[in-house]
Amino acid sequence: MLESQRKIFPFRIVAIQTLRHGTAFDPRGLAIDPSFGPHVQSAEEFLDRAKPEVVVELTTLNPSTGEPAISHIRAAFARRHHVVTANKGPIAHAYSALAQEASRAGVEFRFESTVMDGAPVFNLVRNNLPGCKIRGFTGVLNSTTNVVIEAMRAGRTLAEGVEEARRIGITEADASFDIDGWDAAAKTAALANVLMDARVTPLEVDRRGIARLTPEKLLQLKDQSKTIRLVSRARSGPNGIKLRVRAEVLAETDFLASARRTSSLIVFDTDLMGEIGTVELNPGIEQTAYGVFSDLVDIAKNSV
Amino acid sequence: MLESQRKIFPFRIVAIQTLRHGTAFDPRGLAIDPSFGPHVQSAEEFLDRAKPEVVVELTTLNPSTGEPAISHIRAAFARRHHVVTANKGPIAHAYSALAQEASRAGVEFRFESTVMDGAPVFNLVRNNLPGCKIRGFTGVLNSTTNVVIEAMRAGRTLAEGVEEARRIGITEADASFDIDGWDAAAKTAALANVLMDARVTPLEVDRRGIARLTPEKLLQLKDQSKTIRLVSRARSGPNGIKLRVRAEVLAETDFLASARRTSSLIVFDTDLMGEIGTVELNPGIEQTAYGVFSDLVDIAKNSV
Repeated sequence: MLESQRKIFPFRIVAIQTLRHGTAFDPRGLAIDPSFGPHVQSAEEFLDRAKPEVVVELTTLNPSTGEPAISHIRAAFARRHHVVTANKGPIAHAYSALAQEASRAGVEFRFESTVMDGAPVFNLVRNNLPGCKIRGFTGVLNSTTNVVIEAMRAGRTLAEGVEEARRIGITEADASFDIDGWDAAAKTAALANVLMDARVTPLEVDRRGIARLTPEKLLQLKDQSKTIRLVSRARSGPNGIKLRVRAEVLAETDFLASARRTSSLIVFDTDLMGEIGTVELNPGIEQTAYGVFSDLVDIAKNSV
Repeated sequence: MLESQRKIFPFRIVAIQTLRHGTAFDPRGLAIDPSFGPHVQSAEEFLDRAKPEVVVELTTLNPSTGEPAISHIRAAFARRHHVVTANKGPIAHAYSALAQEASRAGVEFRFESTVMDGAPVFNLVRNNLPGCKIRGFTGVLNSTTNVVIEAMRAGRTLAEGVEEARRIGITEADASFDIDGWDAAAKTAALANVLMDARVTPLEVDRRGIARLTPEKLLQLKDQSKTIRLVSRARSGPNGIKLRVRAEVLAETDFLASARRTSSLIVFDTDLMGEIGTVELNPGIEQTAYGVFSDLVDIAKNSV
């Protein structure tokens, strides 16, 4: 993607740190398929040698802590580097603190890919809804449960549904993160932290997954022209912000039910602009990459 | 809306020209409910006296020509004023020429409210999809036909459906503009002109309305769990850009069918970001106003 857009957006990659392939440096810009040298031991040492303007953080997530991504991002802010991450952990667990550190360092912190890949969600509110207050949102944000629910609705078991999601490549080794609603809860917390200043972690989301659903239940609902989606909801009220992830029974014709397979959608409830939302149909890995790319472009534009 | 946002966005209204109430001027800023003086004869004279930075053009549309809005906008550009319009006529009929005039005058030309009220459509592509090429789009963009189709699906006549749409306040005196697909064609042309550089008018949209639909047909489709929407489609191919407005038969569970009553939606087919879209649920007149407001804010930010 960077290569195809190079004429208009000439980003230069000065270093790459990987877990398995080692580390690559070239202040003049690395080739597409760079040769990796020995693995630099720490993120700090890597950043001190690389001297980038922007750090792109894409490590594997520990969903219950947000580490090591949070430490990497802090190391970057300490060196006054802008940060783009596709990791929802830091946004779900530590957004408020990280945003303050970025602000103190005078750098940007972007994370469009953490929810709905590259579809504009955070940047939609940031760039297109001036003056609007987000009072709540409703979304279908987890693909694995969409696939599992459709499989059970066709009479197959939950395990068979998980296997299908794994074949598509959307499920981690430990599918319980999706099935038990943790992925949806992390996205719900991330959205609420950024858009509603909620200052919560995924643990504070009232969460129930789809583990207790059965093919029998879904076939019975099908006879009534109904189905189920794992729905994320946020609502700001007099007693604070309520966050919930639930398997909700919906009419087949419900807008929320139109999120199938890897598709996802979100609707924001706003004060000035009513209910508006974003949909993403059948995305793949390219769309996650695009979220990082669009964040990079935004930072570059703001830095000119 | 301007008043409620005044602390953050202190816009000043220096003049208002109306068809029936006369004209009001105050270079220090008009009150919310200004007293109108005698009607200034021409748009040119009005602009010369008002000396604004931004002109907001909201006149009643002649859909087949785009006038008088186009002339008003040209008069503003000639005086180097930025322009915001909620009028789709100029965008559907003369976008390319007007955009060039704005560019030569060094001013901005914005029109978010012309399609889907204030929901980000043009600004979504402008602000959030850097590097993305729009290869086509699919949308349900006309509310009156949604209401009429649902009425016929409940066994009522087309005329009764039109009457209901009129009660909601979404239909003009001449409902044939909606029923025959001209409104949808104008929006389709506007989108294609701005986002795909199509340089067309609504006359070049392959258009068929819903006038030939009957309650019988819709009840028959209902028995098959199907329904109809007036769908706008654009597609860029080897032989140029094809634009089409049609009453399409859809499964009730189709994403497009989830646009009901005043709700609307659009999905863009992009090269880098796959299929993404915007939805707007149950908007009213406030949402049209918000589109104008968000354009004003964008112009103000770009002018700082």
